[in-house]
Amino acid sequence: MPKEGITPRAKDYAQWYLDIVRQADLADYAEVVRGCIVFKPTGYAVWEAIQRGLDDRIKATGHVNAYFPLLIPKSFLMKEAEHVEGFAPEVAEVTHAGGEKLAEPYVIRPTSETIIGHFYAKWVRSWRDLPLLINQWANVMRWEMRTRPFLRTTEFLWQEGHTVHVSEEDAERETLMILHDVYADFVEKEMAVPVLRGLKTRKETFAGALRSYAIEAMMQDGRALQSGTSHNLGQNFAKAFNIQFTDQNNQLATAWTTSWGVSSRLIGALIMAHSDDEGLVLPPRIAPVQVVVVPIFKSDLERDTVMTAIEELTGQWKGRLRFKIDDREQYSPGYKFNEWELKGIPVRVEIGPKDLQKGTVGLARRDKPGKEGKSFVPQQGLADHIEGLLADIQQALFDRALKFQQDHTYSANNYDELKQGIEKGFVRCFWAGTDNDERRIQEETQATIRCIPLEQPGTSGKCVYTGKESKQMVVFAKAY
Amino acid sequence: MPKEGITPRAKDYAQWYLDIVRQADLADYAEVVRGCIVFKPTGYAVWEAIQRGLDDRIKATGHVNAYFPLLIPKSFLMKEAEHVEGFAPEVAEVTHAGGEKLAEPYVIRPTSETIIGHFYAKWVRSWRDLPLLINQWANVMRWEMRTRPFLRTTEFLWQEGHTVHVSEEDAERETLMILHDVYADFVEKEMAVPVLRGLKTRKETFAGALRSYAIEAMMQDGRALQSGTSHNLGQNFAKAFNIQFTDQNNQLATAWTTSWGVSSRLIGALIMAHSDDEGLVLPPRIAPVQVVVVPIFKSDLERDTVMTAIEELTGQWKGRLRFKIDDREQYSPGYKFNEWELKGIPVRVEIGPKDLQKGTVGLARRDKPGKEGKSFVPQQGLADHIEGLLADIQQALFDRALKFQQDHTYSANNYDELKQGIEKGFVRCFWAGTDNDERRIQEETQATIRCIPLEQPGTSGKCVYTGKESKQMVVFAKAY
Repeated sequence: MPKEGITPRAKDYAQWYLDIVRQADLADYAEVVRGCIVFKPTGYAVWEAIQRGLDDRIKATGHVNAYFPLLIPKSFLMKEAEHVEGFAPEVAEVTHAGGEKLAEPYVIRPTSETIIGHFYAKWVRSWRDLPLLINQWANVMRWEMRTRPFLRTTEFLWQEGHTVHVSEEDAERETLMILHDVYADFVEKEMAVPVLRGLKTRKETFAGALRSYAIEAMMQDGRALQSGTSHNLGQNFAKAFNIQFTDQNNQLATAWTTSWGVSSRLIGALIMAHSDDEGLVLPPRIAPVQVVVVPIFKSDLERDTVMTAIEELTGQWKGRLRFKIDDREQYSPGYKFNEWELKGIPVRVEIGPKDLQKGTVGLARRDKPGKEGKSFVPQQGLADHIEGLLADIQQALFDRALKFQQDHTYSANNYDELKQGIEKGFVRCFWAGTDNDERRIQEETQATIRCIPLEQPGTSGKCVYTGKESKQMVVFAKAY
Repeated sequence: MPKEGITPRAKDYAQWYLDIVRQADLADYAEVVRGCIVFKPTGYAVWEAIQRGLDDRIKATGHVNAYFPLLIPKSFLMKEAEHVEGFAPEVAEVTHAGGEKLAEPYVIRPTSETIIGHFYAKWVRSWRDLPLLINQWANVMRWEMRTRPFLRTTEFLWQEGHTVHVSEEDAERETLMILHDVYADFVEKEMAVPVLRGLKTRKETFAGALRSYAIEAMMQDGRALQSGTSHNLGQNFAKAFNIQFTDQNNQLATAWTTSWGVSSRLIGALIMAHSDDEGLVLPPRIAPVQVVVVPIFKSDLERDTVMTAIEELTGQWKGRLRFKIDDREQYSPGYKFNEWELKGIPVRVEIGPKDLQKGTVGLARRDKPGKEGKSFVPQQGLADHIEGLLADIQQALFDRALKFQQDHTYSANNYDELKQGIEKGFVRCFWAGTDNDERRIQEETQATIRCIPLEQPGTSGKCVYTGKESKQMVVFAKAY
């Protein structure tokens, strides 16, 4: 049964998304600051969980964190020709400070390749200093025309890795390692969202990069959401900022750099991959609260008995389960059930006087609303049972999302089939078109080549647009 | 023996500080961005440790994190009369964005009372919504004239808590709870820096606050460093932004708010409280790396034997100790000892072939450089021994800092004694002067009233400046 205040997905997917953001209390519109949102505590807690999972992987693969300035001298943007073209139109400029007009304006970082390149040029001297593997957690700003909470906002939160290497080969290895071992691993295992891993076409390559790779996830309306990008920057930024080192033969050489990032739009991906018409659905591994315990009682005496039993039952949970006991007195159990369903808590435990008599509790799993997800289980061994249940839910969400992705991925042999397919999901097809062909298709259909998957069929076929024979398989989709 | 590249403290304390920042690789000057620094990985790791310790306490006391916009409409600053006076001269302004001039400029947040006040007015409806207890980790910007790494930079990192309450009493309780249970507890227990806790005089009160409290730490040159502030904002911001709620009697009431913050200047406090002429000294509880293990060998065979022994010895350390094995081959043990002393790692373990024969290891504690801090201990039970040693070091650093603070705190009965005392440290004295008297003393001596300590003697005496009888004891000092 759809909830009050939530437009069903089938009726209006875009409105459903906004309703979930509001009803699950994830964000508020900062209508007084153009295109910005407030990350409310519930939403920010999800971001903290994402940060933790990513930061662990970033550090486990040998990177360290640092922090670079928010402001970038405007002239820095100009140093890399493609970069300025990509970002100059979207920046916010600081022209006055301390009551005076500045000699040179600063821009608020839209991304930090330029300012970090400046410092790396100072820090890198010898091959012994390489690889230099640094990540930054930061806010960035891009003056977007159309914004949508989490998915596209003028200010957003992200991590951006910036590394320096002695060779193109090393830079490429880093770029792909991040794509696989950090981004895809995190998004699939923690967020339970299956992703395509692939190379971007030239048209979709990051401004200033040699090659861009991305992970692409499918949302429940069949659209793609680019969930992380990893760029081999070649020597473009190293040349623009003069990042040079003395190599093992004592020769001066130009370095190779990479950059890679994922942002708070992952919260949007989480919402659109798993949630339903009842509210948010959070995968257990990312859920700030995994279990909510709701006491059921009708009198003060019952309340005391039930609360004592709950204290006892949950006494050993700390460190094993992230749980919350909802002992608020001003709300009814039904109100609480509704609230925690809206907020996507994976498991609800209900305990009342009858349960105490029977030595059981009621369990409800969020991924299966209604009767299907309800069960009664013994209090004995409850924590073990819940741990197993959480693992089940995590897997079930991933499996469901994967099946959805597979069911909504189509093959196309010609432009008509492509046009039909992208109304429903991803389209796999052979491609031999030009950048202009790609642009024309985007104008006509709004779909773009999301990526050239790293796993290629190895066969060849006719290009979906030009009809030319091609060995290159691509994936088209409409994207967020 | 002072290290190359470090000016001895006795010679030039200010230069010593800058040398430590550079030699311990904590920060780099961002000379291209006015008054900013880069937090290099070593320095940022300290900030991450500070964040972790504070965030745990902030959450344990019932607060949740959120994130509000970086930009604030300039008009917002104007809504609270004292606030605008305090901050308007220091802000950086965004006047252009997306290639166009903005109708109203934004300022980059110097602090977030105004923008958060705007949202709280929307969110708070009833007494049931209160208290509202939110914290934010963020970057902020104040266009300072004189900057110094960590201590005062135009951009800095901090946390700012913003809470809303039903009564002045509740707001006051929150303000003091943060001062004691979050700030003083963290700084004393984790950073091993003893602090004075006190009320600020009217002159030193936060722009817009009813009452400001602070913790003040003594640096090794006898100066004070304000290490955290907690403000009872009264109804000033609630009135300016219209934060109202329906109380339990169904009457509309104006809320009471607080704000409180500590910043990356705590890294400066850490440096100046404990470090010496050999480099940085980090308290074990805050040290990102607590133990460094340096293998000693002269041949490949010796290296293999020693490294195998080290792997075995440290196999069980994970989760107990934060340690690093320095197996770099291009550097000598002496080079490594020097580097880790500079970087302040609390304990160094040395293992060579002789140690293997004897079943011992060499230990060196950073807080006692030279022979005094050296010992040889059995490999058996080493982790236990090191845990004990780290606890000893933590306590020893606190005790030493406390003794230093006590030894450099003077009583003054008249202005001459005050002037003498503040050249060496803190001065405790009775005070009955006016705001103007305070200003005059600052002009003449550069010293300010750091705080009116919460622990008062209960007796009375003559005001150090006016000679009037007073029951109020204050602490004067020169401050960073």
